[in-house]
Amino acid sequence: MGNLKLTVAYDGTGFHGFQVQPNLRTVQGVLEEGIEDLTGAGPRVTSSGRTDAGVHAVGQVISFQTSVSIPVEKWPKALNTRLPQDVRVLDAQEVSPDFHARYSAKGKMYRYLLATGGGANPVIAKYVWDVGKRLDIDAMEQGAWLLAGEHDFTSFQSAGSTAKTSVRRVTKSQITVDAGSSLFPGIDGLVAYDIAADGFLYNMVRNIMGVLVRVGLGKIGPDEVQEILAGKDRSLAGELAPPQGLWLMRVWY
Amino acid sequence: MGNLKLTVAYDGTGFHGFQVQPNLRTVQGVLEEGIEDLTGAGPRVTSSGRTDAGVHAVGQVISFQTSVSIPVEKWPKALNTRLPQDVRVLDAQEVSPDFHARYSAKGKMYRYLLATGGGANPVIAKYVWDVGKRLDIDAMEQGAWLLAGEHDFTSFQSAGSTAKTSVRRVTKSQITVDAGSSLFPGIDGLVAYDIAADGFLYNMVRNIMGVLVRVGLGKIGPDEVQEILAGKDRSLAGELAPPQGLWLMRVWY
Repeated sequence: MGNLKLTVAYDGTGFHGFQVQPNLRTVQGVLEEGIEDLTGAGPRVTSSGRTDAGVHAVGQVISFQTSVSIPVEKWPKALNTRLPQDVRVLDAQEVSPDFHARYSAKGKMYRYLLATGGGANPVIAKYVWDVGKRLDIDAMEQGAWLLAGEHDFTSFQSAGSTAKTSVRRVTKSQITVDAGSSLFPGIDGLVAYDIAADGFLYNMVRNIMGVLVRVGLGKIGPDEVQEILAGKDRSLAGELAPPQGLWLMRVWY
Repeated sequence: MGNLKLTVAYDGTGFHGFQVQPNLRTVQGVLEEGIEDLTGAGPRVTSSGRTDAGVHAVGQVISFQTSVSIPVEKWPKALNTRLPQDVRVLDAQEVSPDFHARYSAKGKMYRYLLATGGGANPVIAKYVWDVGKRLDIDAMEQGAWLLAGEHDFTSFQSAGSTAKTSVRRVTKSQITVDAGSSLFPGIDGLVAYDIAADGFLYNMVRNIMGVLVRVGLGKIGPDEVQEILAGKDRSLAGELAPPQGLWLMRVWY
């Protein structure tokens, strides 16, 4: 009862993105159907931001109004039994009436996963971008470092954005190499790019990743990241990275 | 040209098992189509053993005869461009005419992956069995240890097996807990059961896993694994573990 905030995880493989679309399977559509099935009412849910087709999430946040008096702690289990296996509700909280999953968000973190093995594990291929070649991690780290701080990210914004300003404050921009050995087959040696900011422009992470991978492959030098940023021109960033390596990790409020 | 041995990996999620079946998507069917596409001839391929629907492989081995003179080192790349993304050829070798992927196999190793988190990560759910509860690892280790060595595994063999003898020599039967932290979201804390043997009966690993999970949940004591084994009666093993946690890791020749 009241305004609810849910943390959700999803495997983006089987969805045409987050945002509801007629006759297409979307995360929002599946969540709204599940809520209607549970409560009898089908509210429109708001998310912290839509994710594109193929993008995954372990910490997406949605909010919606409900008049049903199910205790908030029972929501995850009750809703999960009505949702397909590729969407899971991890947490539910009652929030103040003015809470809005998108407008109340103070920041977000995304992770982009890269592999270098050339597609050895077909399971992993749906969740990482396998560039199939060795990456120069030092150069990528240097390029990533240049993006931290407050900048105008026009060069990393795809067409179709409705944002009023292209200035964003990046609080984390970091490359990490997986050192450990996992029991999950074929997962060793992943490279992650973690980026946290007070907000993201349309396709910003995938545009940045496209540039950083070109740095890692030696096609451009790390200093060119600075030039691309300073140029404030989307055509400078080149091709964006594919969606399946991108994970929405966390939203802060 | 001659007799070829290929090592292949697949994500079992999208297949009705390995073995070819009319009008169903199978790993064997997809491989045979790829080979026909590449060579113009569609040989029947032989595997080290079929895997059930939903079971994955990172080290399955197949063999087949070909009269096409493609250099053996070019086979993986040439065939991979003709295969869907969920099957990958990792290696190709020319072998003697009497090599047979099934009859020449000296041993195999399977891994079964368990999670305990209750379905928090929808990505992982397709590749592990999430039992949703804490497992008593000590008890499971003790139960697993009792299965090592040469035994009659009748109690762990599902109906439909055509094996002449139910005696198998288990050279590894081991529980491992994932200690490290992986960059891949939601993968920490997995529990793996590794079992290597000179051969496996039908559903043997999934039947064993079903019993060991009951040990881990405290429903039966680890000593009862010994009793089930000694009873030589399939009805003693109870429900078998679901397919999606099972991975064929390696075949020895």
